[in-house]
Amino acid sequence: MAKISLGVKPAIFPSPVLLIGTYNDDGSVDVMTVAWAGMAASDLTEVYILENHRTTENIRKRKAFTLAIATVETMAQSDYFGIVSGAKDPQKFEKSGFHAVKSEYVDAPVIEEYPLTIECELEEETSAPEEARILGKIKNVLVDEKMLGDNGKMDVSKLHAIVWDNFQAGYYAVGEKVGQSFVEGKKISSLNKLADWSEDADKKEDTSSACSSACGAATLEEEKKEAPSACGSACGAAN
Amino acid sequence: MAKISLGVKPAIFPSPVLLIGTYNDDGSVDVMTVAWAGMAASDLTEVYILENHRTTENIRKRKAFTLAIATVETMAQSDYFGIVSGAKDPQKFEKSGFHAVKSEYVDAPVIEEYPLTIECELEEETSAPEEARILGKIKNVLVDEKMLGDNGKMDVSKLHAIVWDNFQAGYYAVGEKVGQSFVEGKKISSLNKLADWSEDADKKEDTSSACSSACGAATLEEEKKEAPSACGSACGAAN
Ligand SMILES: Cc1cc2nc3c(=O)[nH]c(=O)nc-3n(C[C@H](O)[C@H](O)[C@H](O)COP(=O)(O)O)c2cc1C
Ligand SMILES: Cc1cc2nc3c(=O)[nH]c(=O)nc-3n(C[C@H](O)[C@H](O)[C@H](O)COP(=O)(O)O)c2cc1C
Repeated sequence: MAKISLGVKPAIFPSPVLLIGTYNDDGSVDVMTVAWAGMAASDLTEVYILENHRTTENIRKRKAFTLAIATVETMAQSDYFGIVSGAKDPQKFEKSGFHAVKSEYVDAPVIEEYPLTIECELEEETSAPEEARILGKIKNVLVDEKMLGDNGKMDVSKLHAIVWDNFQAGYYAVGEKVGQSFVEGKKISSLNKLADWSEDADKKEDTSSACSSACGAATLEEEKKEAPSACGSACGAAN
Repeated sequence: MAKISLGVKPAIFPSPVLLIGTYNDDGSVDVMTVAWAGMAASDLTEVYILENHRTTENIRKRKAFTLAIATVETMAQSDYFGIVSGAKDPQKFEKSGFHAVKSEYVDAPVIEEYPLTIECELEEETSAPEEARILGKIKNVLVDEKMLGDNGKMDVSKLHAIVWDNFQAGYYAVGEKVGQSFVEGKKISSLNKLADWSEDADKKEDTSSACSSACGAATLEEEKKEAPSACGSACGAAN
């Protein structure tokens, strides 16, 4: 396969599409779209935002914000929140037609129309080369009841989340579940007839999701505490 | 809609699924899966990785790594790279059946089977509460020729990227393009008959993608330099 060099580009795909909810000085609501964002620890969110956004000012003042996940159903509004600035149009939020209530956990609004909202307190602000790097301490996660699966856990396939691409600035829908982590990889090792970890795991099928949540998220200590022993080496933690 | 509190959870959705490629001491290849990762600036990637991974050691020694994007076609191997540690199995990479060549830009391997690879030099390591925070300076982006669209730009819908969820540790395929940023939001403002920026933009349809790339990625200075004047306020930068 011929490979082509594209030079220096922001090329991670995809970026999530999140909405930051904050309060303005007068208690009215502002919402802005952010794509450069992610998890920084099990209870820490991270967003990179330009100095001059109204949102940045609001976060500094109230020390709190919410993060909602953009969906196919809310795409037009979610994009609109990324075009208009609350600094220019004081009625930005009102004009979206969406509704907000105060978070019970932090001094920031929960936008009712989004099915999943993360309620954060400002943990730390540092400066990144281009933007402010904001870390939020998660105080609670609020979801629409109908987003839960039969097992009582959040079922993200019900969200209809959209993601963003840094090359052509398009929105894409996240589709169906295609696999389970810490399960798919076993095919490789059995194909290649190797590794005792996979034989162990075969005997204990149910451990896979406990393994992966212990792994993807955890500190070494938590990993050891939370992970069933069958996945002791699954995260490479015991190695 | 009744909302349910889930407590404190890593709830951003989705996380990307990336593969970090590094060289071991003996010049053999290691690859590991990472989901807590994203863009930190136009030319900076960021990954959060546990201290005890072989990959973390390799990055410190060679000051370089590559990041490839996991796809539906490479799901089994991409998961496998996240289960087995190179510290435990020196033949980890070989057993995947994948192939590597040396990057022309950095001291790290490019895995041939992945359609998009970001070649990075170690820019900075800082410590996060749970993991090491690694910033990579992008030196080049390498893509399979057939991933380019008719306009010569990377067409991410050809990638078949997969993403990961922090709640149930599943993999999900990213589907079709459903919209264009800085275009969808106009529906709201025209519905509500407002804002001169949207009337301006209507007259100059072609500016939308230039607007959005200037906005999502850029510093204020770059934004002003790169953005056509019709989208001066699109990023909230001019406000
Ligand atoms: C898809 C999309 C992604 C965006 N991502 C970011 C981002 O990561 N960081 C940022 O500072 N601005 C980003 N923006 C731009 C802001 O959302 C926009 O400038 C907004 O008008 C700021 O609103 P405010 O001034 O009311 O806070 C994005 C916009 C869109 C449409
Ligand atoms: C879907 C998935 C996501 C993962 N995300 C991370 C991550 O964000 N950070 C991390 O330190 N480990 C993560 N891991 C675990 C490592 O990939 C795994 O421990 C690997 O075996 C380390 O390999 P190494 O020791 O050869 O470097 C993830 C694994 C999977 C399957």
